[in-house]
Amino acid sequence: MRMVDLIQKKRSGQRLNEAEIDYVIQGYTKGEIPDYQMSALLMAICFQGMDDQETSDLTMAMVRSGDTIDLSAIRGIKVDKHSTGGVGDKVSLIVAPIVASLGVPVAKMSGRGLGHTGGTVDKLESIPGFNVQLSNGQFIDAVNSIGMAIVSQTGNLAPADKKIYALRDVTGTVDSIPLIASSIMSKKIASGANAIVLDVKVGSGAFMKTVDEARKLAETMTRIGKALNRRTVAIITDMDQPLGREIGNAGEVRESLDVLRGRGDKDLSEVSITVASYMALLGGVSASLEEARTAVIGAIESGRALETFKQFVASQGGNSAIVDDPSLLPAASVSAKVKATADGYVSKIEAEAIGVAAMLLGAGRATKEDEIDYAAGITLHKKIGDRVSAGDVLCIMHTNRSDTAEAERLILKAYELKDTAPEPAKLIHEIVEGDR
Amino acid sequence: MRMVDLIQKKRSGQRLNEAEIDYVIQGYTKGEIPDYQMSALLMAICFQGMDDQETSDLTMAMVRSGDTIDLSAIRGIKVDKHSTGGVGDKVSLIVAPIVASLGVPVAKMSGRGLGHTGGTVDKLESIPGFNVQLSNGQFIDAVNSIGMAIVSQTGNLAPADKKIYALRDVTGTVDSIPLIASSIMSKKIASGANAIVLDVKVGSGAFMKTVDEARKLAETMTRIGKALNRRTVAIITDMDQPLGREIGNAGEVRESLDVLRGRGDKDLSEVSITVASYMALLGGVSASLEEARTAVIGAIESGRALETFKQFVASQGGNSAIVDDPSLLPAASVSAKVKATADGYVSKIEAEAIGVAAMLLGAGRATKEDEIDYAAGITLHKKIGDRVSAGDVLCIMHTNRSDTAEAERLILKAYELKDTAPEPAKLIHEIVEGDR
Repeated sequence: MRMVDLIQKKRSGQRLNEAEIDYVIQGYTKGEIPDYQMSALLMAICFQGMDDQETSDLTMAMVRSGDTIDLSAIRGIKVDKHSTGGVGDKVSLIVAPIVASLGVPVAKMSGRGLGHTGGTVDKLESIPGFNVQLSNGQFIDAVNSIGMAIVSQTGNLAPADKKIYALRDVTGTVDSIPLIASSIMSKKIASGANAIVLDVKVGSGAFMKTVDEARKLAETMTRIGKALNRRTVAIITDMDQPLGREIGNAGEVRESLDVLRGRGDKDLSEVSITVASYMALLGGVSASLEEARTAVIGAIESGRALETFKQFVASQGGNSAIVDDPSLLPAASVSAKVKATADGYVSKIEAEAIGVAAMLLGAGRATKEDEIDYAAGITLHKKIGDRVSAGDVLCIMHTNRSDTAEAERLILKAYELKDTAPEPAKLIHEIVEGDR
Repeated sequence: MRMVDLIQKKRSGQRLNEAEIDYVIQGYTKGEIPDYQMSALLMAICFQGMDDQETSDLTMAMVRSGDTIDLSAIRGIKVDKHSTGGVGDKVSLIVAPIVASLGVPVAKMSGRGLGHTGGTVDKLESIPGFNVQLSNGQFIDAVNSIGMAIVSQTGNLAPADKKIYALRDVTGTVDSIPLIASSIMSKKIASGANAIVLDVKVGSGAFMKTVDEARKLAETMTRIGKALNRRTVAIITDMDQPLGREIGNAGEVRESLDVLRGRGDKDLSEVSITVASYMALLGGVSASLEEARTAVIGAIESGRALETFKQFVASQGGNSAIVDDPSLLPAASVSAKVKATADGYVSKIEAEAIGVAAMLLGAGRATKEDEIDYAAGITLHKKIGDRVSAGDVLCIMHTNRSDTAEAERLILKAYELKDTAPEPAKLIHEIVEGDR
């Protein structure tokens, strides 16, 4: 087999078979296929696409490129959850204790964040003492005893995906449904998931700008799941503004506790309940979606989800007193108000700009080496549909840095005010179920 | 400017402007842009194409990437000639002395061949003593006194093209009209041509398989010529079988002498006369194509073209006695007949297979390091349309190697016999003139 022939084949619109895809992926992972051939193939894929069989084959080839996590020592159906990424997205922190309290084991490996705010493990590390590095044995024991554990990704999971992603990033080949779908699914499968709930974000703050695009990605991923025997459901949710009110690590933990107390914002609560319901359904603890939803709401109202979160924090060495007293979470030295400069209705909040502002305040990493300031972030006081008058507080910036001018400038630009109230935004656009 | 943005731009179907193309080409030549980004851009160009302005800008950016030859010390309009490559193509050896004898200065830089048979300078080196490496001064003096000189390409001409071509070869991005056209034109312009006659080959033995494709390439090149003020004409000629009867370096010199004596095969003579006529026209020594054709035929019939060739050989140190006695050219120790195994009409001779067979006999290089056996080659005794009976000699293999079995096998496979005589092939399909 010669790589140049495979590039030609894809370029001319033919499909690659399993052996050919495996040759490409293993060869590239080992460094036997050079970057310049891989990037040419990736670009050809961007134009010619991949059919379902190719996309599944690509996913499994990337899984085979490295280690896979064996979760067989954990009882039950391991349901993983993945979000395509949004600003203020703390849904994982909320749904994990909910479904764990319902008997769905959550053995989650999560990444650190780059850009905007931290990833799930960064957020957890804002809890004093919290340890995201467990041994394999500790990880499995924690899930079996408490129902959940969240650790930093270890091992060499889907290294092909990692290497390919880095190449796509600099060669204009990020935007391709089969490449995005196989990247996400390969990581979930390598981490041992039996079933997967995907939160596909759509809107100005998401990678997918239209529901059509998001649906295509969702359908592709659920079809991969079906082909590879992982029950997969994708929920297409809105990202036309940040999710919830808090952006920044400690703030997002605080807001997650609010939701677990039944006191969260409607948008964040609704997305969380929907995701958790599908996790309960796929985890086999509820017989129908309606039953799952009732169970999820019950887990919140009964305080069982919050209690599970508390046990989870304690089991990973964190100060579980933060659950009852969130003021024990890191707080910033500066809290600066950003005020509206005009009257109107909030019609848009550019999520990405808010994310960048939070990063400038210290909440995220611009480079891998940057340290996160867990206390830094933004609390939104006005969201889409809210009426504001000039001088009203739009949001509060939390930071330990002295210069907030650029962040404030970005925030003011991110808020769009109009004379009339906007149509209420649709929060959950569609559910794409792979195993109909 | 960031390369990844330019890749994205081209990927999305937008055009690149002159500054952007120059950034890419100079950056890539200097090694500041890595291969993997260049190959992604090249693949995007394969899908999205380039418009005329982009293709001209790309051509000139490649010219600027290295040295350019200054031919201003040579009087007259310097007309260069280029063939997109075919088997048995010795037209340059024939047209150069014809038009030189008519007063069109031919200052030709030529490459060595890789594959099949040698390039023009390899063919000339089959003449004992012939020197293809002249100093710049010797080169110009020779053209001014004799009317022509052909040397091996020196200097750092269009290094971007060289580097890009090597990358295209291994990334499935060879087949792209704007990339092929700019590659050819950049080399011609860097070598100082004022006007260019292109011989675009079409057919089973050529890179362009259909007249439509060939026309597109021809039109693109003539439009580049127009945009860059180089009068350019493209002649689309047939390559459904090798051109002429000789394939192999010394054999091709011998056959060229036949044509210059007016004793050449019709196909080779006709292509040569047509190319030479357009060179005479573009060189300004004839007022019309008809006049040019008359002059070209006159140069052959009067023996002036042959005399110019003799002077040219002598001026570059070669044994000019070969002109009157071609038996002084290298001869092979073995001459083996390849005989027809059945009766029929020759309906096809796969030119590429014949080229590979010639290479196996020693006429070409499989790798850059291989040495050419100037005596090796093939003489075709039967061509398309000829009636053959089993046992008739199809061709003769000339070689100094002991094993001719594989070459013979290839030749027999290359010849296709049918029961009925084929339609006579069209030799010159179209003329594409850029400056209508």
